[in-house]
Amino acid sequence: MTVPEYTADDYDVIVVGAGHAGSEAALAAARMGQKTMLITLNLEMVAFMPCNPSVGGPAKGIVVREVDALGGQMGKNIDATYIQMRMLNTGKGPAVRALRAQADKNAYHRVMKDTLENTPNLTLRQGMATDLIVEDGECRGIVTNTGARYRAKSVVLTAGTSSRGKIIIGELMYSSGPNNSIPSIELSENLEKLGFKLCRFKTGTPPRVNGNTIDYDQTQEEPGDKTPNAFSFTTKDADYVTDQMSCWMTYTNEETHKIIRANLKRAPMFSGVIKGVGPRYCPSIEDKVVRFADKPRHQIFLEPEGRDTSEYYVGDFSTSMPEEIQQKMLHTVAGLQHAKMMRPGYAIEYDVIEPWQLTHTLETKHVKNLFTAGQMNGTSGYEEAAGQGIIAGINAALRAQGKPGFTLGRDQAYIGVMIDDLVTKGTNEPYRLLTSRAEYRLVLRHDNADLRLTEKGHALGLIDDDRYAAFEAKKQAIQAEMDRLHSIRIKPGQAVDDFLASKGGAPLKDGILASDFLKRPEVSYEDLAQFMPDHPDVDRRVIEQVTIQIKYAGYIAKEQQKIDRLHRLEAKKIPAHIDYNAINGIATEARQKLTKIQPETIAQAGRISGVNPADVAILSVYIEQGKIAKVG
Amino acid sequence: MTVPEYTADDYDVIVVGAGHAGSEAALAAARMGQKTMLITLNLEMVAFMPCNPSVGGPAKGIVVREVDALGGQMGKNIDATYIQMRMLNTGKGPAVRALRAQADKNAYHRVMKDTLENTPNLTLRQGMATDLIVEDGECRGIVTNTGARYRAKSVVLTAGTSSRGKIIIGELMYSSGPNNSIPSIELSENLEKLGFKLCRFKTGTPPRVNGNTIDYDQTQEEPGDKTPNAFSFTTKDADYVTDQMSCWMTYTNEETHKIIRANLKRAPMFSGVIKGVGPRYCPSIEDKVVRFADKPRHQIFLEPEGRDTSEYYVGDFSTSMPEEIQQKMLHTVAGLQHAKMMRPGYAIEYDVIEPWQLTHTLETKHVKNLFTAGQMNGTSGYEEAAGQGIIAGINAALRAQGKPGFTLGRDQAYIGVMIDDLVTKGTNEPYRLLTSRAEYRLVLRHDNADLRLTEKGHALGLIDDDRYAAFEAKKQAIQAEMDRLHSIRIKPGQAVDDFLASKGGAPLKDGILASDFLKRPEVSYEDLAQFMPDHPDVDRRVIEQVTIQIKYAGYIAKEQQKIDRLHRLEAKKIPAHIDYNAINGIATEARQKLTKIQPETIAQAGRISGVNPADVAILSVYIEQGKIAKVG
Ligand SMILES: Cc1cc2nc3c(=O)[nH]c(=O)nc-3n(C[C@H](O)[C@H](O)[C@H](O)COP(=O)(O)OP(=O)(O)OC[C@H]3O[C@@H](n4cnc5c(N)ncnc54)[C@H](O)[C@@H]3O)c2cc1C
Ligand SMILES: Cc1cc2nc3c(=O)[nH]c(=O)nc-3n(C[C@H](O)[C@H](O)[C@H](O)COP(=O)(O)OP(=O)(O)OC[C@H]3O[C@@H](n4cnc5c(N)ncnc54)[C@H](O)[C@@H]3O)c2cc1C
Repeated sequence: MTVPEYTADDYDVIVVGAGHAGSEAALAAARMGQKTMLITLNLEMVAFMPCNPSVGGPAKGIVVREVDALGGQMGKNIDATYIQMRMLNTGKGPAVRALRAQADKNAYHRVMKDTLENTPNLTLRQGMATDLIVEDGECRGIVTNTGARYRAKSVVLTAGTSSRGKIIIGELMYSSGPNNSIPSIELSENLEKLGFKLCRFKTGTPPRVNGNTIDYDQTQEEPGDKTPNAFSFTTKDADYVTDQMSCWMTYTNEETHKIIRANLKRAPMFSGVIKGVGPRYCPSIEDKVVRFADKPRHQIFLEPEGRDTSEYYVGDFSTSMPEEIQQKMLHTVAGLQHAKMMRPGYAIEYDVIEPWQLTHTLETKHVKNLFTAGQMNGTSGYEEAAGQGIIAGINAALRAQGKPGFTLGRDQAYIGVMIDDLVTKGTNEPYRLLTSRAEYRLVLRHDNADLRLTEKGHALGLIDDDRYAAFEAKKQAIQAEMDRLHSIRIKPGQAVDDFLASKGGAPLKDGILASDFLKRPEVSYEDLAQFMPDHPDVDRRVIEQVTIQIKYAGYIAKEQQKIDRLHRLEAKKIPAHIDYNAINGIATEARQKLTKIQPETIAQAGRISGVNPADVAILSVYIEQGKIAKVG
Repeated sequence: MTVPEYTADDYDVIVVGAGHAGSEAALAAARMGQKTMLITLNLEMVAFMPCNPSVGGPAKGIVVREVDALGGQMGKNIDATYIQMRMLNTGKGPAVRALRAQADKNAYHRVMKDTLENTPNLTLRQGMATDLIVEDGECRGIVTNTGARYRAKSVVLTAGTSSRGKIIIGELMYSSGPNNSIPSIELSENLEKLGFKLCRFKTGTPPRVNGNTIDYDQTQEEPGDKTPNAFSFTTKDADYVTDQMSCWMTYTNEETHKIIRANLKRAPMFSGVIKGVGPRYCPSIEDKVVRFADKPRHQIFLEPEGRDTSEYYVGDFSTSMPEEIQQKMLHTVAGLQHAKMMRPGYAIEYDVIEPWQLTHTLETKHVKNLFTAGQMNGTSGYEEAAGQGIIAGINAALRAQGKPGFTLGRDQAYIGVMIDDLVTKGTNEPYRLLTSRAEYRLVLRHDNADLRLTEKGHALGLIDDDRYAAFEAKKQAIQAEMDRLHSIRIKPGQAVDDFLASKGGAPLKDGILASDFLKRPEVSYEDLAQFMPDHPDVDRRVIEQVTIQIKYAGYIAKEQQKIDRLHRLEAKKIPAHIDYNAINGIATEARQKLTKIQPETIAQAGRISGVNPADVAILSVYIEQGKIAKVG
């Protein structure tokens, strides 16, 4: 029977899918005052974590803080629901420090759902989007399987891994979204009909085991930090959770690897069952054993899934081996010899919209007012999804308001790096953020995300005035302390010399500026403080900024020079619809790539793989001459 | 690609499906010392409540206490997770009093999952059973979609509404388990191949709305009780939740009914889309409007779904109307004029194993060692499922131990009434427990479930010695207090006469036994107490029993006579495999029914519809004569 369509409510913004991308998108749009609907397949799976029960880590943790500084939810949500918090790489430089939290998986979902339910302007609804309303090349709403036609000024799609999802375990393959949820089929089909190019990616998850069957004595404890830390800049130290849960570390061994090698012909990754492309940076264990054949062992982390469950996630052990083999593999690992597997690992194959079809606002080039975000844009990871989600939500709201778009540059945020990578280079495997993807790592730190982005969040209406005032106060406190350290002199004397000697340094000859004293690698702010008379109480977050800004001033200045160069290239806009065939001298591959990607600036053109500096120079001159041929 | 099978673990008992039936079955088997596996489609849906977020009510609440007295979990689980508790019908007699609790839906799931994970002998696992291992007419295990062949001494199936489930909303119909979970297809197909007769039932659920969009001023508050009460006999008064949440009552009206009537042709119940038979005692609102055409309004209860969600369940408003119509219907109701619907109501059609194919132990007659329980046996309701689940689990465990089966009579428990109804009469619609189904209502009270069943639970190994000792102490205290009241005399005097006068009674002429004094309708135990010197402190639960046993002694005695008669008929066993065609004089319909149902006793034969007293008499005499013809 065909389902009769009916005219349902009108919205400013509609978001499809309440995963990590969709939740941020909808919250951003609603908080920007737009009447917003968030529709999702299953309300029990709002902000569901189908894979690792954790948030943060290198690069990803910085994205969470960026989302927070823009007024997003992920940071607050994990701060309300973590069971362990750890600062990684504390021994290394500030650019690679990263916060990582274990989430209570179910609580993470509950708190996000509750937040969505209680946000003004936001309607959360269970339902399945099956089609888009597209008129005159513009998206004007969605259609659902119940026949509802919801109209909107802009639409954000964040369908995750549900799009024509297929779960694969060894030789078994069946149609399913993540964790045995029903898949979304029609929406994908209709996107193809609209002319979008989709491709197939795959990702995988490890088995879960019952914690009561782990022998922890054979593993190494990884407790949480004692020193308070949080993702959101609004979370108070006083709220730091003290009764944290530990993770546990163990290793695979030759026996594990032997079993994997002996069964490679049954691994869907290698047997040809899986057609989708998997994530290079989140490989399955069978993949690791094949690619790093000489490594005698691989680390495994046993991570609790929550406070009121005994389920443990077997981190870094992602696999789509047949269930039988998975059990055998598990039982070779120290501590897991008698582990009961509660769920097998599996791979999931799903549709991705090739991201070169998007602009930097995450709008599709092909259909106006249609935005996409998250896993369906080719990324993998909750944080990557959230980072795109908030940008898509902001832009959908701005579009609904008739305002120009909002983008972040590669020098402003990891989110900017990620989106530029996606839309400029595309991706032929699930894209994951890594610190190595950023050129300006010393500027894109996790500790300064607020300094980089709070002002933008406030201008967008996502950061309220109270929070903004607190932020301004922090900024002023940093400046005041910088000024102070640049004016106070540390005088030579016995105490200073003793201190320097204890650190293996030479005594002070003359007086020295406090800031110069702090610059010395062996001197911390606390060391310095004891030599400054009338030292005021300074907030530890202000101290952190002052210390980094003074100690790394030289490096930061160098990075700033590169950023300035980038800005000059970005100022060179490329007119829309330029006809690259009309430009003489550009190499064929560059011509094809430029035509496909339609870069917005000379800077972006230069980042397209296959476009060489010579091509960029010719293009640059051509544009400067001003006689530009257009297509269409 | 075909999935290669492999030999997985051996168990004593395997339970398929961790709904309300499966959870009890697995816990019972594991607690009886059997190595038990509970395998279920989705661990996120363990003990999931797809419909009303509540437990208990008339008859159902008594089942919860029976499950508890047998050592089951449902009572403890709801006591740990309720947000409201109410004793219903307090103004009426003890036979119809009933406890009812609103559950925090998500917490109910979490606590049950945690309990399962932490029960010794029990392995909880996510997976899909696709087939049974049947050898020589005996079930010896299951096969899963990943190719695992798990062997077991006995198997319990509790597949709920997932079996070839189809969700229906107006003209929309799609393959799905409850709440957009993936359906179970192959297991049903294989049950049919094994020769089981399946039929299609349907049940429905109402829409959910966002509580922030309800105008509570237009509704009537239904707060929880102040007086402590609990489902489990082990729960302490001190743990009674004091910050309970309210429910809210409102009504449909003529406008609602008009919309329903105008759209009946689109109602799948009436348009012919739904082939499955729906529950008469849990009708959809469209059904109620049609069947009770003259009723100007129907009650609706708005029930919170949990502490950390704003979702509200619209109780007694179950519907499978098109989504558009559902919204219109909702918006006519006082308090819901602006309610935002978060999920539409829907009907679900699913496979049921016709329950006459089972014995009283819930074993299938056709395949030995195979037990079924819950919704798939044709019932509807969490409590009905739990009640069957524990019986099936106990019997699967007893079978694995090589011990005889365990059954409950119609005079022992509502569970006994339900199972006897199912296996004797079958059911051609979703079966729901009602007090009217029980002949011995005054004996099957909610307050005496422990007295009726704790001993059995203890004998089975499901009630530990500590709890049993506490139970024995309670029993002795009741007996001691009964003895005391039967020995103490209340003497005539001013105080007694004044009291009686205040109740409109005549003065005492002579001394009277305390028990006789208590028998007077106007006298409560507390009244009596003031006239007894040296009155000891008696536990309120002991007082409750003493009061009921004394006040209703006459009625209870009469019921006991009927029960004795029943026992005499039940003592008359019918030999297995009797050939009814060889008995002269039995009417054709009775002959067919007896052959199909194969009753175990003369009492059961008499309860089969279509078997008349004359047929029973003939059968009785035939068996007494002892020359019995057998089939096969
Ligand atoms: C098996 C598995 C393994 C993974 N492994 C890793 C890993 O190792 N490392 C890593 O970083 N990340 C991993 N991920 C990825 C991570 O889960 C995702 O990146 C993240 O959840 C993406 O967020 P999202 O919001 O884009 O999509 P999702 O979280 O998938 O959310 C999408 C939402 O949209 C809904 N939806 C879909 N279609 C429709 C429709 N038509 N109508 C209405 N609603 C719809 C879905 O129900 C879902 O709620 C894995 C994911 C899976 C499933
Ligand atoms: C839409 C809807 C409306 C309802 N309305 C009412 C109502 O109004 N009143 C009322 O009293 N009751 C109602 N119910 C019924 C109530 O939900 C059930 O009676 C109760 O949940 C039955 O418990 P169960 O354990 O038998 O089945 P379920 O609770 O359904 O549990 C069955 C479990 O088995 C799992 N499973 C199924 N097949 C397999 C397989 N092949 N392998 C592994 N696992 C499997 C499922 O995933 C599920 O977890 C409704 C149910 C639904 C879905």
